[in-house]
Amino acid sequence: MQWVKVLGGVVGAAALLGLGIIVGHFAIPKGADSPAPSASASQDLDLKILETVIEQLDANRIRENLRELSKEPHLATTPRDEALVQLLLQRWQDPESGLDSARTTEYEVLLSFPSGEQPNRVAVVNSTGAILFSCRHSEENLTGEQGGPNVVPPYAAYAPPGTPQGPLVYANQGSEEDFKELQNKGVKLQDSIVLTRYGGVGRGAKAVNAAKYGVAGVLVYTDPKDINDGKSLPNETFPHSWCLPPSGVERGSYFEYFGDPLTPYLPATPSSFRLNSDNASGFPPIPIQPIGFEDAQVLLCQVNVSVHNRLELRNSSNVLGIIRGAVEPDRYVLYGNHRDSWVHGAVDPSTGTAVLLELSRVLGTLLKKGTWRPRRSIVFASWGAEEFGLIGSTEFTEEFFSKLQERAVAYINVDISVFANATLRVQGTPPIQSVVFSAAKQISAPGSSGLSIYDNWIRYYNRSSSVYGLVPSVGTLGAGSDYAPFIHFLGISSMDIAYTYDRSKTSARIYPTYHTAFDTFDYVDKFLDPGFSSHQAVARTAGSVLLRLSDSLFLPLNVSDYSETLRSFLQAAEDLRVLLEQHGISLGPLVTAVERFEGAATAFNQRIATLQEGTPDPLQVRMINDQLMLLERTFLNSQAFPEERYYSHVLWAPRTGSVATFPGLSNAYSQAKNAGHEPAAWAEVQRQLSIVVAALEGAAATLRPVADL
Amino acid sequence: MQWVKVLGGVVGAAALLGLGIIVGHFAIPKGADSPAPSASASQDLDLKILETVIEQLDANRIRENLRELSKEPHLATTPRDEALVQLLLQRWQDPESGLDSARTTEYEVLLSFPSGEQPNRVAVVNSTGAILFSCRHSEENLTGEQGGPNVVPPYAAYAPPGTPQGPLVYANQGSEEDFKELQNKGVKLQDSIVLTRYGGVGRGAKAVNAAKYGVAGVLVYTDPKDINDGKSLPNETFPHSWCLPPSGVERGSYFEYFGDPLTPYLPATPSSFRLNSDNASGFPPIPIQPIGFEDAQVLLCQVNVSVHNRLELRNSSNVLGIIRGAVEPDRYVLYGNHRDSWVHGAVDPSTGTAVLLELSRVLGTLLKKGTWRPRRSIVFASWGAEEFGLIGSTEFTEEFFSKLQERAVAYINVDISVFANATLRVQGTPPIQSVVFSAAKQISAPGSSGLSIYDNWIRYYNRSSSVYGLVPSVGTLGAGSDYAPFIHFLGISSMDIAYTYDRSKTSARIYPTYHTAFDTFDYVDKFLDPGFSSHQAVARTAGSVLLRLSDSLFLPLNVSDYSETLRSFLQAAEDLRVLLEQHGISLGPLVTAVERFEGAATAFNQRIATLQEGTPDPLQVRMINDQLMLLERTFLNSQAFPEERYYSHVLWAPRTGSVATFPGLSNAYSQAKNAGHEPAAWAEVQRQLSIVVAALEGAAATLRPVADL
Repeated sequence: MQWVKVLGGVVGAAALLGLGIIVGHFAIPKGADSPAPSASASQDLDLKILETVIEQLDANRIRENLRELSKEPHLATTPRDEALVQLLLQRWQDPESGLDSARTTEYEVLLSFPSGEQPNRVAVVNSTGAILFSCRHSEENLTGEQGGPNVVPPYAAYAPPGTPQGPLVYANQGSEEDFKELQNKGVKLQDSIVLTRYGGVGRGAKAVNAAKYGVAGVLVYTDPKDINDGKSLPNETFPHSWCLPPSGVERGSYFEYFGDPLTPYLPATPSSFRLNSDNASGFPPIPIQPIGFEDAQVLLCQVNVSVHNRLELRNSSNVLGIIRGAVEPDRYVLYGNHRDSWVHGAVDPSTGTAVLLELSRVLGTLLKKGTWRPRRSIVFASWGAEEFGLIGSTEFTEEFFSKLQERAVAYINVDISVFANATLRVQGTPPIQSVVFSAAKQISAPGSSGLSIYDNWIRYYNRSSSVYGLVPSVGTLGAGSDYAPFIHFLGISSMDIAYTYDRSKTSARIYPTYHTAFDTFDYVDKFLDPGFSSHQAVARTAGSVLLRLSDSLFLPLNVSDYSETLRSFLQAAEDLRVLLEQHGISLGPLVTAVERFEGAATAFNQRIATLQEGTPDPLQVRMINDQLMLLERTFLNSQAFPEERYYSHVLWAPRTGSVATFPGLSNAYSQAKNAGHEPAAWAEVQRQLSIVVAALEGAAATLRPVADL
Repeated sequence: MQWVKVLGGVVGAAALLGLGIIVGHFAIPKGADSPAPSASASQDLDLKILETVIEQLDANRIRENLRELSKEPHLATTPRDEALVQLLLQRWQDPESGLDSARTTEYEVLLSFPSGEQPNRVAVVNSTGAILFSCRHSEENLTGEQGGPNVVPPYAAYAPPGTPQGPLVYANQGSEEDFKELQNKGVKLQDSIVLTRYGGVGRGAKAVNAAKYGVAGVLVYTDPKDINDGKSLPNETFPHSWCLPPSGVERGSYFEYFGDPLTPYLPATPSSFRLNSDNASGFPPIPIQPIGFEDAQVLLCQVNVSVHNRLELRNSSNVLGIIRGAVEPDRYVLYGNHRDSWVHGAVDPSTGTAVLLELSRVLGTLLKKGTWRPRRSIVFASWGAEEFGLIGSTEFTEEFFSKLQERAVAYINVDISVFANATLRVQGTPPIQSVVFSAAKQISAPGSSGLSIYDNWIRYYNRSSSVYGLVPSVGTLGAGSDYAPFIHFLGISSMDIAYTYDRSKTSARIYPTYHTAFDTFDYVDKFLDPGFSSHQAVARTAGSVLLRLSDSLFLPLNVSDYSETLRSFLQAAEDLRVLLEQHGISLGPLVTAVERFEGAATAFNQRIATLQEGTPDPLQVRMINDQLMLLERTFLNSQAFPEERYYSHVLWAPRTGSVATFPGLSNAYSQAKNAGHEPAAWAEVQRQLSIVVAALEGAAATLRPVADL
């Protein structure tokens, strides 16, 4: 295929060089456990070591990790969450299989919990206020694991307390359009309680949208059509299948932003300045409560909702473990996942943490044996309080902002590692595509197909690349997990790796027991990944990516792969051209900037290829690697989106406009179009265009020969 | 002396290492003009080369440069300014003494000029409007150089046009306090014209302050007491002495910010988004016009001011020249000065440009001969349109933001190189102190004292350091010249170097002919620096600093020297403690953060010393140098001062509060104190404190061993 040839120019050459170096590597006897103080500056990826790591990643150990991790509910900051902090520390400090060092970082963060004394309640009442029907306070204890004091009752984290009462109105997904339509139909929304189903818009957005119409309270339920492929009967659902039982309720954070709500842009250390919680923004404006579909289907008439959630300052820990780089200890490859769950969290997040622990064990063992030490430093992280809004990871990026901006090569996130057993699914920035492809080609897919993970993947998710032909499609990064602060706030090349569905077999919005008390070990063991071979496949893929990033002499990031994204954004921008030109705005500079980026990236790749043919000196390699590492940072502009907390990446900020082009341009254009001839709105379009042009020109400048003027 | 010992730990060791390497350096024969492609990674400062450079910097050549540069007025963007662009390009492209390459970068920027047809006018009128007296439109042509079409008449750049008329009120320096006092005395300010003298507050601030009291127009004059040590008679002033003649008028920019007014945070390329000039901020709100003291002393009663300034979009060029680094071409040491003047600009800026050209000639000659190539890249810059608000340099930092943030080691600014002949004067961030001291000790002071520049300097400006004992005092950097965008916007270690006054002999606010038509070659040649030995001293000092920064194996920046600044800020903050604690704000975390920084910096210096004793590998050196280079960046916080355009350095942002502590803290405290018990004002104090604490903790983290968690 075409793409093998082109990609080969970069990746293939690195692999060949690697082979050359293996000989030297194994010819030199290794010290037992203290690595040689002056490592070889030309140390490169060792394919033998890579093979060893892949081989040793063990499905059964992942299964045992998962059993232990998901044994008890471990909601953020609860005693069991803290016990898992100790488990991680112990693993990473193990004399046989631990890392160089491990520690925790603790933050004091604002979380939200239901009251212990006054349970939240949803009830149907008659005109005198007498209760005719009451929704469940908790899920049905079907397997013995849904009961007990540590199962947090279903609630909407950060929903304000209140006891609104009113007639029930069904509002579909609670989107802006849904409410507009109800209003147009003459449905009275003022002082009503609206029933919405999960999906379509974010959780908190349902309350934000509802409040604009005077709605008093919001209910959210999980529709069997959206999550169970329509199945809803007890004997069709868990524990008889992977489907959500009628009493299951999706918990979740209803906070609009991410990070600790009281300390935006500051680490939530005990002494940090905190907003008064009355002044904090991003909380739902009205009470909101999630319920199961069992209850949703019987609700009628007048409904009373009692929400007694409380905001609490809690101490939440991250656990960090490091393997010191032999040659470039000041370059970090980060690999992380959150630790906290809503209940037992077997799938979310423990499938990821189980993989994390297995990967750190295998690498730790090689390290302790003295067999291997990476070229660059590896940082493993277990984040706290992700479920409340990526809090642990965000506070970490705030605390170590400078150090990470200066030194982080890439961030690998493996949150839920297995949604289902069909195929690999990767989201990330374009430069990580090539290293993921290299890894995926090397590893066999689970099952008996005989295909590589790559060849299996391309069957499920693919696209036609103008450069490579048919390739698996790598998705873009939103803000769904802990990669968000790394890519949006720090501009670090990031990715999220998992195994997932065959979309022809299920239309489930996400795995059915997501954020419910039914997300348990048995659920994974029986329905999600019996045999844990998908877990192993993710461990191997992510492990290979990690090793390639930490050990390759030249960083395996292909900056040229940004060109396809830029071309597609540019193509989409052509749809705006007519109206832009009517307002005196030219796309010319953008076209030129994209062309310059492409030219600079192509020439840069050629310089790498030339260097790889010779024996580049260590500082030449470092120079190239710095360009590779820092390219992503050049897309940050802290002036671009002042209203969007943490978002400063001009290519990946949230896009609300309908045209799939540069987000700032798309959003400003969409607003200007609605505003008619308002000059300020069109000025903002021009400003956003200039911001993107400046970023692309800056990116091209970073890729050009460093002493070019 | 005590400080020699302590400083010796860092600088002395580097010098010794340098000596060791010279042997090797001279043992290897050099290629004629193409430097060896693979330079030695251990290349260090070559003391012999340094000596050669210092020796070859020639006073007479500087004088000839100055004569050429100041031959004609060269206001930004005028034909003569463009001719100087060509002169610089020619010099830097010279086959015998040029650099590796040179080019211009051009920006389209908004400047302000007086009308050619309607001269600005200041007149005393009677009640019928008849003119009783009219101020001069231009300075007296005393030497034949004050006349002609290229001498721009005195005006206040960016002052709005208008023809206000009203009774004249003397308002001292036009500070907030001055107007408050006038109001308290019952003086009617509404619709008046106020006469103010230069000094005390910024130019534009006089109009901003006046407009708040309904003042219709402002005049600004130069008081002989402030500039001439009281001398005001024609026979006491130029051409009979260095003093300003009675007709002399200081021109200047009255723009409040810096950079192109229409493209904040964006490079002013032709296609960039531009604010409508009606929406641009930072211009004086009312007409304002500067006059000479000759006219100021006769003004009475009703005054009519006619200002006909016009805003114009002009193309302004920077000239850039580069010497490619042999070992680390991706590390830049920048050396720059502006090129544009108000009139002939012999002192401002040509004394600096004359030195720049001599320094680039000497280095270019060594380069072309193949004798030398620096370890790091050197970038020489001639900035355009500085006089209008540091425009060329600011647009440059906006255009190359990412590249510079990632790679710039330091910025050396030599604007006016000679104010007077008494002593060296240096402003800069603390880490540059040690390299300036090293340079200044090596070079003889002009005159017959037999002292080094350092020993002479310490006689005029000194302070008692808790670490070093008595040392010359290095001043702080405001926004007076092109270093401002480098330090405040980009966080690059910066300095400004000049020769200056004996303050016991003159109290002149600045050299008397500053920004007037009397700032000519003869003025410099006869009064400011006959023999040009002070110019030579500055060339040698700045040249030595440049070479040390570009050539030393370890960057000669001493991060520990920030500790004294932090201690002094902390000490000053103690004065705030009582009131802070009354509002529940503790200084404890700040004290801890300063201690942690000190500890990290000390340990870091010890690691450098240890490495210097051995033979560190290239990547170890690079790692340390990256920490040295990037420390200054860790003090940037784009959230800290959202209202202060470009200012993001939490230690050097403008301080308006009276307490000499961290500027954000000082300013917020001062506002909160005035606001009484306003909780939001005290919350801002706590926020600013947290921002500084986070920055210091981040700085300490950057200095710690890179693989420490």
